[in-house]
Amino acid sequence: MIVVKGGVTAAKGFLANGIKAGMKRSGKKDLALLYSEAPAVAAGAFTSNKFQASPLKISKLHLKNKTHQAIIVNSGNANCANGKSGDRSALAMADYIAKGVCLAREEVLVASTGIIGRELPIRKIQDKIPELIVGLARDGGDYFSEAILTTDTVKKELSVKVRLGASTVTIGGACKGVGMVYPAMKVQRHATVLCFLTTDVAISKAMLEAALGEAMEESFNMASVDGDMSTNDTCFILANGMAVNKKIATKTGDYRKFTDALKFLAKELAKMLVRDGEGATKFVEIEVTGAKNKDDAVKIAKKVSTSNLLKCCIYGEDPNWGRVIAAAGASGSDFDADAVDVYLGGIKVLSNGSRVKNYDKDRVAASFKKSDISITVDLKSGKRAATAWTCDFSKEYVEINSEYST
Amino acid sequence: MIVVKGGVTAAKGFLANGIKAGMKRSGKKDLALLYSEAPAVAAGAFTSNKFQASPLKISKLHLKNKTHQAIIVNSGNANCANGKSGDRSALAMADYIAKGVCLAREEVLVASTGIIGRELPIRKIQDKIPELIVGLARDGGDYFSEAILTTDTVKKELSVKVRLGASTVTIGGACKGVGMVYPAMKVQRHATVLCFLTTDVAISKAMLEAALGEAMEESFNMASVDGDMSTNDTCFILANGMAVNKKIATKTGDYRKFTDALKFLAKELAKMLVRDGEGATKFVEIEVTGAKNKDDAVKIAKKVSTSNLLKCCIYGEDPNWGRVIAAAGASGSDFDADAVDVYLGGIKVLSNGSRVKNYDKDRVAASFKKSDISITVDLKSGKRAATAWTCDFSKEYVEINSEYST
Repeated sequence: MIVVKGGVTAAKGFLANGIKAGMKRSGKKDLALLYSEAPAVAAGAFTSNKFQASPLKISKLHLKNKTHQAIIVNSGNANCANGKSGDRSALAMADYIAKGVCLAREEVLVASTGIIGRELPIRKIQDKIPELIVGLARDGGDYFSEAILTTDTVKKELSVKVRLGASTVTIGGACKGVGMVYPAMKVQRHATVLCFLTTDVAISKAMLEAALGEAMEESFNMASVDGDMSTNDTCFILANGMAVNKKIATKTGDYRKFTDALKFLAKELAKMLVRDGEGATKFVEIEVTGAKNKDDAVKIAKKVSTSNLLKCCIYGEDPNWGRVIAAAGASGSDFDADAVDVYLGGIKVLSNGSRVKNYDKDRVAASFKKSDISITVDLKSGKRAATAWTCDFSKEYVEINSEYST
Repeated sequence: MIVVKGGVTAAKGFLANGIKAGMKRSGKKDLALLYSEAPAVAAGAFTSNKFQASPLKISKLHLKNKTHQAIIVNSGNANCANGKSGDRSALAMADYIAKGVCLAREEVLVASTGIIGRELPIRKIQDKIPELIVGLARDGGDYFSEAILTTDTVKKELSVKVRLGASTVTIGGACKGVGMVYPAMKVQRHATVLCFLTTDVAISKAMLEAALGEAMEESFNMASVDGDMSTNDTCFILANGMAVNKKIATKTGDYRKFTDALKFLAKELAKMLVRDGEGATKFVEIEVTGAKNKDDAVKIAKKVSTSNLLKCCIYGEDPNWGRVIAAAGASGSDFDADAVDVYLGGIKVLSNGSRVKNYDKDRVAASFKKSDISITVDLKSGKRAATAWTCDFSKEYVEINSEYST
């Protein structure tokens, strides 16, 4: 597997565009379209939130169709809590694209991100559909990645190539979301994380869903900026088969290779979100090892990654590891506190549940001055592990989020 | 029931003191003692954290004793993650008091609060024991309330009187804790919330434990400053029987009256903590009504009360209710999102899961400019309810917690 340049249009047969439709007060690009030249099988993963935005309801219905060729996305408005009028607007977005490029509307998926509880300005979208479609291009991935952003400061895109038999398959992706980030995306059941993945692999819909499910659990679902789960989190993957590999229809070696490449891509994209987290000055990786079972490892990694106190001291470059153990102990996981070791920047500070006397405080302090910080919690009770990512909690985060809607 | 002045020494037979032992860098009072003239039955509630500080281990052992007469408390050091040396220090604190006032050491309870992972300066404590004991006084509650504080800006104490038969019973209390506040204190099983309750009621130990359990669930366990659960959260209650009421030994009418008064007192003390939350500029009450069961109501109220995004917009006086529904939906409770109404400051903004068109935005905005903010989520699916309290999330919070240990 090799990493290559490009995002959603890196794989064969994908075109994209992103334009300004006037929904963002900033006047930046806010309407995006992704198009596959060949019918693609699709899978989607959606937020576990009980409140689900209208585009999620429509996309879930449309995913029942066998193939898909387009995804329309707006930023600046979540189209959430808008009742039936919101549902009609989401459906209209699909309809406009379907008519414009001659598809059935069920072949079009929809995603939205932005503020909750404001009427979607559907006329502004409708007026821009011709411009959006006409501009579709093989090099339009960049515009797409830009138009899906909200409070993000940089575009997030990446692609990988993987060899399957005699064929080379490309997987590309773009994502957004640097606030209200604590996704728990479930395939076909349940981000305002938005992630769009495209690939030219030939694969069955069932295998694509399985691969996406595996990738989500170890990537976006382990990322956190603020611990707030959105009503709009969505990840779509389109696979159009244009790589003409031997079609993946069961969990063969090719399935494993493809899924591992997809997992790598999804992890890298998820880490990009966290690095650009609202107000973030640090990137933090939390590794939990030695757990009896995966679930315990995941719970502890997630609890530590969402500790406000820990995130504040990381902002202050203060290696206050007491906050790591307080969070780990509050995770609801069962473990022997007297067996636990904790490492900051690779230096052991807690051994068997007790502070290490005379550890090198200068080296630990120096590790907290870096932009990337590593924290390891070793339970020493088993072989399971999990890794979560978060950023620090800064005054800028509070500033950004105290002024968002007004 | 009437509210009266005073804290831990309001009830008959209680003496207290608080002095400086040199553990706090600020040089403020940091060592406190509470003493009952008569043997008292005691109950304790402790953090659910898997990491438990040494004083909690010692106090849990000592609670097996039938009666107790003293509680020693230090601030400035949590005596947590100090291994066996920490356990020895906690036991030594009990021992010093036991010898000084002629009790068995099992009759002395211990609590600590402050930074995790620093050796407790036990010699500083030992040197101050004579001064601490000699200063015990009926009007010492004030000193006690002061010496238990860490980042708190004000003392928190309150008392109530309740009539039981021919007798009048007094219940008093003091508490501290304005950061790392998201307690889940379980009686005899499992705050850095510290709460000390005293009463002259005559009651059996079993009934006292039951009453404390009821009171915790609807008070401290529904309070949050930052969503971080401490390794040291502790609540003790001492009941010395000096009110000579008919002893409460079963769940009679007197049990109910006493427990209701205790619950009222605990709620008011918990609210005081939240009002003084680190960096807090606002007090927020979140009421969830119409739930099918209590557990769902509690989960939603707690999830909304710990939403960083919501707490930031409250700091910014921005009534962004989308963050209320996003948090409610992420609670893990099962409910019909299409039935939900949401009120901000008593004004309906969401009706049956959809935004209310033309609600009075000026009135809602005005309600967010007040120091006390009320948010109601009505699930309209049942009769159960829960109330949680939190504060806003300010730049000052980040400042306080980015500089704590250095």
